[in-house]
Amino acid sequence: MKLEKVYSYIDANKQEFVNDLVRLVRQPSVSARGEGIQECAKIVEEMMKNAGLSTLIIPEAQGNPVVYGEVKSKSSQKTLLFYDHYDVQPPEPLEEWMCDPYSGEIRDGKIYGRGVSDNKGNIVSRLKAVQAFQETTGDVPVNVKFVVEGEEEVGSPHLAPVIQKHKDLFSADAAIWEFGGTDRKGRPIIYLGLKGVLSVELRAKGASRDVHSANAPLIPNPAWRLVWALNCLKNEKDEIIIHGFHDDVEPPSADEMKYIEKIPFEEEEEKKDLGLTEFLQNVSGLEAVKALLYHPTCTINGFLTGYTDTGSKTVLPNKAMAKLDFRLVPRQKPEDILKKLREHLKNLGFDDIEIISHGSTEPVKTPINDSFVQTVIKTAERVYAKPAVVYPTSAGSGPMHLFRNWLGYPVISVGCAHAESRGHAPNENITLEGFIKGTKFIAAILQDFSAS
Amino acid sequence: MKLEKVYSYIDANKQEFVNDLVRLVRQPSVSARGEGIQECAKIVEEMMKNAGLSTLIIPEAQGNPVVYGEVKSKSSQKTLLFYDHYDVQPPEPLEEWMCDPYSGEIRDGKIYGRGVSDNKGNIVSRLKAVQAFQETTGDVPVNVKFVVEGEEEVGSPHLAPVIQKHKDLFSADAAIWEFGGTDRKGRPIIYLGLKGVLSVELRAKGASRDVHSANAPLIPNPAWRLVWALNCLKNEKDEIIIHGFHDDVEPPSADEMKYIEKIPFEEEEEKKDLGLTEFLQNVSGLEAVKALLYHPTCTINGFLTGYTDTGSKTVLPNKAMAKLDFRLVPRQKPEDILKKLREHLKNLGFDDIEIISHGSTEPVKTPINDSFVQTVIKTAERVYAKPAVVYPTSAGSGPMHLFRNWLGYPVISVGCAHAESRGHAPNENITLEGFIKGTKFIAAILQDFSAS
Repeated sequence: MKLEKVYSYIDANKQEFVNDLVRLVRQPSVSARGEGIQECAKIVEEMMKNAGLSTLIIPEAQGNPVVYGEVKSKSSQKTLLFYDHYDVQPPEPLEEWMCDPYSGEIRDGKIYGRGVSDNKGNIVSRLKAVQAFQETTGDVPVNVKFVVEGEEEVGSPHLAPVIQKHKDLFSADAAIWEFGGTDRKGRPIIYLGLKGVLSVELRAKGASRDVHSANAPLIPNPAWRLVWALNCLKNEKDEIIIHGFHDDVEPPSADEMKYIEKIPFEEEEEKKDLGLTEFLQNVSGLEAVKALLYHPTCTINGFLTGYTDTGSKTVLPNKAMAKLDFRLVPRQKPEDILKKLREHLKNLGFDDIEIISHGSTEPVKTPINDSFVQTVIKTAERVYAKPAVVYPTSAGSGPMHLFRNWLGYPVISVGCAHAESRGHAPNENITLEGFIKGTKFIAAILQDFSAS
Repeated sequence: MKLEKVYSYIDANKQEFVNDLVRLVRQPSVSARGEGIQECAKIVEEMMKNAGLSTLIIPEAQGNPVVYGEVKSKSSQKTLLFYDHYDVQPPEPLEEWMCDPYSGEIRDGKIYGRGVSDNKGNIVSRLKAVQAFQETTGDVPVNVKFVVEGEEEVGSPHLAPVIQKHKDLFSADAAIWEFGGTDRKGRPIIYLGLKGVLSVELRAKGASRDVHSANAPLIPNPAWRLVWALNCLKNEKDEIIIHGFHDDVEPPSADEMKYIEKIPFEEEEEKKDLGLTEFLQNVSGLEAVKALLYHPTCTINGFLTGYTDTGSKTVLPNKAMAKLDFRLVPRQKPEDILKKLREHLKNLGFDDIEIISHGSTEPVKTPINDSFVQTVIKTAERVYAKPAVVYPTSAGSGPMHLFRNWLGYPVISVGCAHAESRGHAPNENITLEGFIKGTKFIAAILQDFSAS
């Protein structure tokens, strides 16, 4: 059987696969500060070529290049598209890493490094699955397309125009999204949707320069203004109190609830792992899962003002800044939420607070009864020999709506991470075993999709 | 008359006085970074000896040396103590100086340099007044003591134990404090008190590490906790709402109001200088002066959490920190306010917020009807031939309470600066005229105090 040969190839060449992944991890590619972007895009293109794809770098006037690759099948008309991103989150706080975040260091069967789980491991894994077919069969089971962008971690601000301009290039019958993995029991996880996200920065200004804090009875303090403004967005019960924010929020459907009830949620392990005694509002069990997947959020990502070094300084700062993200659920629209945020702060007297949008994506979902979804669930359960865990939607975000909502095909997210991969955090890692198994899973999806 | 001879000596020797001041200014002495401290202390001691004082360097195990000097009067039992400091603020930003901050350059009748106004001009001026008496009369009108410390600009963290250990050395009948000068109209300013200050740091903790903000429905965010906690300390009307905070706050007395009403306050210049259209709560005139002198404050000096670089990062931080200072008015005690802060946050459910004290000083005031105060007011009005401007207290802070509250004598602050002396800022300066007039003022205080 074809797939057995492909699996043998993967096993025989896994050291080469790991070496490629380490090489990709060693190349910093922080989109938030434009670090190593062009260099990383070139490596991805080179790896695509090595996997037998023809490539195209789509340069973006204002953004980071999108690396596109494709290979035609000699035996199928179907097309499967892979969406990935070569950019990574900033590695800070550096002091909490046990190794250089750009080392790709291997310890106890795990590869460590910024982006190894999100999402460089999947880039390499997917390309290697294609390469394995090419090398062992001289063909791919279906037409394959790769879209590897460089701005996912900053909200994919320039992907929409690329897709509008190159609709044919991105046409497909189905797509595999960038993230996923196995749970603590080794069960494969399948995600069918994403929350939307709206990232904003709030800025407050005071006097034309910092002054001595003895002047506090008379001089406005932008740090206080920002504290008070933030306090009007979410209350101490963690309820978002922006007027109209919840207007379009929907509870899970009955169909979705059937899958949600089966989602294993190792809450004690989660809490222990994070050093917590309870979750917010003390939710647990099914309520916790529903909150995670179906509740919109408002999160302070950062806040900076004044003197923050050791000891004290009697300064009254003249500027303050906070960064926030809002996670949105289906039917909430980022532009509507931004408008409601502006109106809310204005109505409460905070029109001195400047609101800057750092980009957004829409919430998105593929229905559970879609045939591609059902195929991938079966494939997953065969490859991992365990029941699949299906999330009708997920807590994360990304530009999936551009493919699912604009181009109209089903989009499913799977990958080779594990329960403690620590995406976006220090000591991000994947296991070598998960990386290789994930590569076989992708190979099996290619095969099963061609036969479905 | 004695004082005429003394004035003549001052006029005849002013070039020598200026040379000594320039020498002292040329010696950097930045306590914030331990620059030139020992060297400067030695110059001060040498200048004390030249003025006829016996001296003692009080070395501090953890801090900078205190330079002590004294001379006994042959004709009086009374003792006047001068409190000064030889340390200075860092001179930065250097590019805004029109000369080297350690040049002591003289231009258009002004001496420029870091520390010339705060407080090296006063050190030299006061020593020269003593020297003038010694040289012309062979005596001083009263016993004179000098305490010149080296840590005022960093909050005098080690002065209290020095005073506890050397109470006899610092005993006196009255003291002259380190700062003061004339207003824009050349009127002598007399300060009778200081606010206290309590510096604290609030820390909130969340999970054991930063997590992806997709987890926001379940994972506590210390940034929100800190925002909500701060919001419970001061409301949007700038009212401090810590339970019991205002218990010991007193309005100005009728006696004080008579002086406060005469305080000139150039508010339009102040606002223009700071780029403001109005002060907090739109106060102006007498209300602004009362607020500045009599309102306790709660100021956010700094706030740091999460990602604060350019762009956005979808992170949920695991720690947040804010630095605050409280300016306190007479009868408020720093330890009591710290206790009330702790209780307030605890009672509102914020016992997860850690509170760290970064030190404090007590508020302090000498009553207007004190006979030494009345003597100095009369002396000032005679020497400057203009009405004195009397501040019953002031907006700043310092270790005055160690002398006034612990040792129990009246303390008054006067000096030889002027309205544009720019203490703590680039192009710090005093006028040659103000320096010499200030020296005569000190001589006159010595004489009048002995006769009072």
